[in-house]
Amino acid sequence: MKKYYIGIDIGGMSLKGAIVDNEGNILYKARVVTQVGKGNKVFIDDLKGLINKIIDENKDKEISGIGLGLPGLVDSKTGLLENAHNLQITNINFYDELKEYNVKVKACNDANVAALAENRFGASKGYSDTVLLTLGTGVGCGVIIDHKLYEGFNSKGTELGHMIIKVGGVPCSCGLNGCFEAYASARALLRLTKEKMLENKDSLMWEYCKNNIENIDGLTSFECAKKGDKAANELLDEYISYLGTGILNVCNIFRPQVILIGGGVSNQGDYLIDKIKDYCEKNYYGMKDAPKVEIKCAKLKNDAGVIGAACLVM
Amino acid sequence: MKKYYIGIDIGGMSLKGAIVDNEGNILYKARVVTQVGKGNKVFIDDLKGLINKIIDENKDKEISGIGLGLPGLVDSKTGLLENAHNLQITNINFYDELKEYNVKVKACNDANVAALAENRFGASKGYSDTVLLTLGTGVGCGVIIDHKLYEGFNSKGTELGHMIIKVGGVPCSCGLNGCFEAYASARALLRLTKEKMLENKDSLMWEYCKNNIENIDGLTSFECAKKGDKAANELLDEYISYLGTGILNVCNIFRPQVILIGGGVSNQGDYLIDKIKDYCEKNYYGMKDAPKVEIKCAKLKNDAGVIGAACLVM
Repeated sequence: MKKYYIGIDIGGMSLKGAIVDNEGNILYKARVVTQVGKGNKVFIDDLKGLINKIIDENKDKEISGIGLGLPGLVDSKTGLLENAHNLQITNINFYDELKEYNVKVKACNDANVAALAENRFGASKGYSDTVLLTLGTGVGCGVIIDHKLYEGFNSKGTELGHMIIKVGGVPCSCGLNGCFEAYASARALLRLTKEKMLENKDSLMWEYCKNNIENIDGLTSFECAKKGDKAANELLDEYISYLGTGILNVCNIFRPQVILIGGGVSNQGDYLIDKIKDYCEKNYYGMKDAPKVEIKCAKLKNDAGVIGAACLVM
Repeated sequence: MKKYYIGIDIGGMSLKGAIVDNEGNILYKARVVTQVGKGNKVFIDDLKGLINKIIDENKDKEISGIGLGLPGLVDSKTGLLENAHNLQITNINFYDELKEYNVKVKACNDANVAALAENRFGASKGYSDTVLLTLGTGVGCGVIIDHKLYEGFNSKGTELGHMIIKVGGVPCSCGLNGCFEAYASARALLRLTKEKMLENKDSLMWEYCKNNIENIDGLTSFECAKKGDKAANELLDEYISYLGTGILNVCNIFRPQVILIGGGVSNQGDYLIDKIKDYCEKNYYGMKDAPKVEIKCAKLKNDAGVIGAACLVM
């Protein structure tokens, strides 16, 4: 029997809402712009406005639950969001706030929610154990163990982006040094690209960004490497060695069946995945004894948030 | 009602067996010397000999199950041990081999079993989420999530000793470089001690080991640091920074309620724990937002193996 859920993907730019059925299909979408910096009340009013709109425009569908994915530290047991720096809201209890809808409500960190979506309906469908790494400004992470989301005590675990992979390494935005995120995020790739360009004035990358280093983006290194540029290939090898180190750590720590790569960098698809696999094959601890871990790109892209949020209440 | 279980702790030196009750009390102990290198059949005969002896000498107690902890890669679902390098045995299916006893049989990696014992009856009793790190020749690890052992897919996860904490770091026995184990094991402490002594010919550590560097042991650095030796304190600070880095990673990855330190190095007790806590307080990612993780010494010492093995079948 078809059942319908509301999934809300809360971001710094917009609140995205959708109706998702129990097979992971999106049947309706709506969004409002996020009013950052106007405090809890405005935020909650906007959220409820979006939910009301979704319900009003889908009166033929009975809603069985509301799930929320958001960029912050939310305790999924109590519903308490302590902090979402990007949204400038603090201490909101979503389960209290949304009680009036008289349906199951569940809130969770957005990277976790995306992992749940990929595991239920996306690239790792059918696998029991999945780790999703999203390579964007930072490195987000969601861990699925035995088909269920693993969050750690008080939902504060699986911050794999802040696993230190290089003692004494470069500074991370968190204040520590040498975090995985500081070496494997899209931002880290840009830093490595800039450094390499400054060392190699004859690299094709200069031409690619019209001789202005401020024009570099996440594609600069990849596009020039594909054209055979030596410096671009060297810097990508370095980037892959860091990314691969973190991935091997995930293998040794969680030993999931599959690791999914999402976020902007994953748009490189097989070109990226093949490089990661090569690195891992060469550096795989216990490879002979241990089962191989599959490495794939995530699939649901921008829809992962609303689908995953809906999964929370399915 | 009292129930009785056989716990077997299989090591390279001896097979230790015990009868453990459902409150974690050891009521009887026996052991046989491990005959390493004589192959599967001799090993299994010795194991069954030990179990038979325990049963024969405890006829008044009905045995409800047999648990095994061993230093190797064993799949706890199927009972298949693929490899135990220290014991020189391969491809033994313990569940088939011990079928004749007509009781529940469960086998698991020894570090996992120790974590289970500490969580059920030892230093982390009452906590739902525990990570045990044993600092010995290597760094062993057991992870308890929601009171249950977490092993990863095919029981091949939680190899935290081989989490890389320093890209391009010192070689590890596994063939990779920069593993946590290569910096935080008792063996790593000895290496750091030697290096520091060679750089500091006037250190008290020379006197402590009678001017022969081959006499150093796990106590050398600790004892001399306590007496105020500068070089010993410096090297311990370095060791603690590596150990602390791995511990902070465990916080960010699993976010357990408590991390237990076991193995030879943990005999330093509060002196060690206080140093670790100091390091973590100063370098704690997300400290303000995240719940603190307690850090304690393990408690059950040499009994953790048999008690934990029994816990597998409780």
